[in-house]
Amino acid sequence: MPARPEPPSPAARPRVVIVGGGFGGLAAARALAGEPVEVTLVDRANHHLFQPLLYQVATAGLSPADIAAPIRSILACQKNAHVVLGEVTGVDTAARQVALSDGRALPYEYLVLATGARHSYFGRDEWAAHAPGLKTLDDALAIRRRVLLALERAEGETDPARRKALLTFVVVGGGPTGVEMAGAIAELARQSASEDFRSIMPGCTRVILVEGGPRVLAAFPEALSAAARRGLERLGVEVRTDCRVEAISADSVVAGGEHIATHTTVWAAGVMASPAARWLGLAADRSGRAQVGADLRPAGLPDVFVVGDTACVEGPGGRPLPGLAAVAKQQGRHAGRAIAGLLRGRAPGAFAYRDWGSLATIGRASAVADFGRVRLTGFTAWATWCVAHLWFLAGYRNRFVVGATWLWNYLTFERGARLITGADAPATPSLSPAQPRQEALAA
Amino acid sequence: MPARPEPPSPAARPRVVIVGGGFGGLAAARALAGEPVEVTLVDRANHHLFQPLLYQVATAGLSPADIAAPIRSILACQKNAHVVLGEVTGVDTAARQVALSDGRALPYEYLVLATGARHSYFGRDEWAAHAPGLKTLDDALAIRRRVLLALERAEGETDPARRKALLTFVVVGGGPTGVEMAGAIAELARQSASEDFRSIMPGCTRVILVEGGPRVLAAFPEALSAAARRGLERLGVEVRTDCRVEAISADSVVAGGEHIATHTTVWAAGVMASPAARWLGLAADRSGRAQVGADLRPAGLPDVFVVGDTACVEGPGGRPLPGLAAVAKQQGRHAGRAIAGLLRGRAPGAFAYRDWGSLATIGRASAVADFGRVRLTGFTAWATWCVAHLWFLAGYRNRFVVGATWLWNYLTFERGARLITGADAPATPSLSPAQPRQEALAA
Repeated sequence: MPARPEPPSPAARPRVVIVGGGFGGLAAARALAGEPVEVTLVDRANHHLFQPLLYQVATAGLSPADIAAPIRSILACQKNAHVVLGEVTGVDTAARQVALSDGRALPYEYLVLATGARHSYFGRDEWAAHAPGLKTLDDALAIRRRVLLALERAEGETDPARRKALLTFVVVGGGPTGVEMAGAIAELARQSASEDFRSIMPGCTRVILVEGGPRVLAAFPEALSAAARRGLERLGVEVRTDCRVEAISADSVVAGGEHIATHTTVWAAGVMASPAARWLGLAADRSGRAQVGADLRPAGLPDVFVVGDTACVEGPGGRPLPGLAAVAKQQGRHAGRAIAGLLRGRAPGAFAYRDWGSLATIGRASAVADFGRVRLTGFTAWATWCVAHLWFLAGYRNRFVVGATWLWNYLTFERGARLITGADAPATPSLSPAQPRQEALAA
Repeated sequence: MPARPEPPSPAARPRVVIVGGGFGGLAAARALAGEPVEVTLVDRANHHLFQPLLYQVATAGLSPADIAAPIRSILACQKNAHVVLGEVTGVDTAARQVALSDGRALPYEYLVLATGARHSYFGRDEWAAHAPGLKTLDDALAIRRRVLLALERAEGETDPARRKALLTFVVVGGGPTGVEMAGAIAELARQSASEDFRSIMPGCTRVILVEGGPRVLAAFPEALSAAARRGLERLGVEVRTDCRVEAISADSVVAGGEHIATHTTVWAAGVMASPAARWLGLAADRSGRAQVGADLRPAGLPDVFVVGDTACVEGPGGRPLPGLAAVAKQQGRHAGRAIAGLLRGRAPGAFAYRDWGSLATIGRASAVADFGRVRLTGFTAWATWCVAHLWFLAGYRNRFVVGATWLWNYLTFERGARLITGADAPATPSLSPAQPRQEALAA
């Protein structure tokens, strides 16, 4: 009887290091399941985050655990995958290893960089302190804390000007995140808050969405942009297009020449790719994204793939592909499959993005959907949005919890997670050091 | 037709200030619903917390929003109640007003202090940094972060001694909180973690419960203490009774003369009442609780009631009543009703505690219950515990979510909320600055 060939020992298998546990990195890891490689996925968070629903955590609709799952448990059944919690500080492409901030180094035969993007303040980094962006769970909890504290402060405030400023919320940026944030803040501050707070009526609250371009949701067809704008205005959001932000401070925003007194500004205007291009010594575009070839490999680095928000890849018509979860997922899968092919001696093919359509939600039972020839608005688009997001959410438990929570919120108009937590949450929310006695009872 | 008597205007109504939105304060507010008073409830958090389930947030079983609800929305329908977010710094009983840290003052005709307790380190405050206690949502999230980070660090650690220390968890204090924490950490670290982490087997992990007295759950009958100990030991918890903690540092606990190398210590050993007694200039017992009369009023202060963990009230047999949710609730209700009676000229009666029984859970499908003549252990006690806690949880939404989550966790052995979040969560969990290359792949 002939001896059966031994499977290669783990030590002899090619090592694939994937940096980033977002949509791109996870898709790459999964595409390598069952392949004769050792996969190591590194992320500085212990969880994969379903970013499309992050704005609902920021506006108290969902809890962090509803839209995040430990990367370890997502990959628990994939025997060739290891997960490392750590922060990558650089890549040595000559020695083929990834450096971590604690001094460890991860050697690789193939590398996938899926490190995503952070928000960018267009060089005005001093705005970061006053206008938090929305990329991580901690970002979302910080925004939730700010919005809820502004309402608490307004409830106890007797000075009309300060009260008005506390009840004014500005969202900068009219892309999907900005539109969704503005709609959700309007619902939270105007509807839920007016039930909880004695002195806050729906009419007291202003939500202003500032967009530098001529319309919101610029990536959507014009008709859907107009529908989104109408939807926001129905919720009471003031939409300012062709309006550029000139200054942001702790208690105001200057936009289009107008001074808006506000204590709560949310940044949804721009993103900057992670430093992957710098690590590799590559040319980057204006948003810091690494220039890669059609097969997602940078020129001269045949064992490195860059995917998702940190890669600049030309789409149809020569325009770079947008920073969407669907793009990252498909690119991650492409990179994983390409590595599996390389092991068998096959050169990687060109990446082709398959566009399944775009969705953005505006508020309760209102959304826009663009599926190319089919365009939806209103309740139909919203129902499609709900089904699509539940479908793509990782884990049966999260799908069930989020679905049940949405149903509950839809039926009751409640928002369950209106909690102010966090080490930097001031125990006392007052802005004015000395207020008249009895002020709390006057409300 | 005779003119109907006008209801008294809000301004003329007696003002009742309640400090604290826990079980005692909320019960007092609710007991005053419909009475001709203006109720102001002050708390430094915006939410009421169901503390009996806090250990499940600390061990990733539940999310913060599942066991907490905004005080405003709990009291939204009670028309005579106002909620103020603020930190009380003192009481001026002569001027009859409560001072807040922002300079505001709340005048009262009647005052209810329901300010609860914090954990106490018996004068060893330097232990606080290494052995966090469990009283607030932020405490629970900090413990969750520490436990999960210890597991992450252990997964990447190659030094056997350091690895052993990272996989050793010490719980100080064998009361209900300590027993519940030890059991839940054992389940998390031994069962869930061994699925997620490649190198952590159930046998690697040690959970040690240190109790200074002769038995755990000292307030329960001896037979139930013994059953709880057996239950913990079945989960792999090492129970050390008659064992006093002598020192706690970042990487060790010295208890009963033994040096235990550990990076994760949880404090469940003692509580200290809030400074209510000091505010009122009253005598306090060893735990800082204010001495009050049988009607819950301190001597010489007929318009002040002190309830819950911050009051020292004699129970049957002359022993002070324990710091339980049931005691706080009944005392809060008593104070509210007594104030309603005083308005009608009735002197308050003596408070009588009605003991409905005590429950403590040990782990999955295991608990002890003491209903006086009826004593339960094992699954029956656990089922009773589940039903009782769902019943007492505030809000239909929370009841539904917690019930569904428990069912899910019971059926799947999963723990959904295994997220490391928080501003002080180190992005990189390494303990050792320079570790050998390839260590992450060796796991």
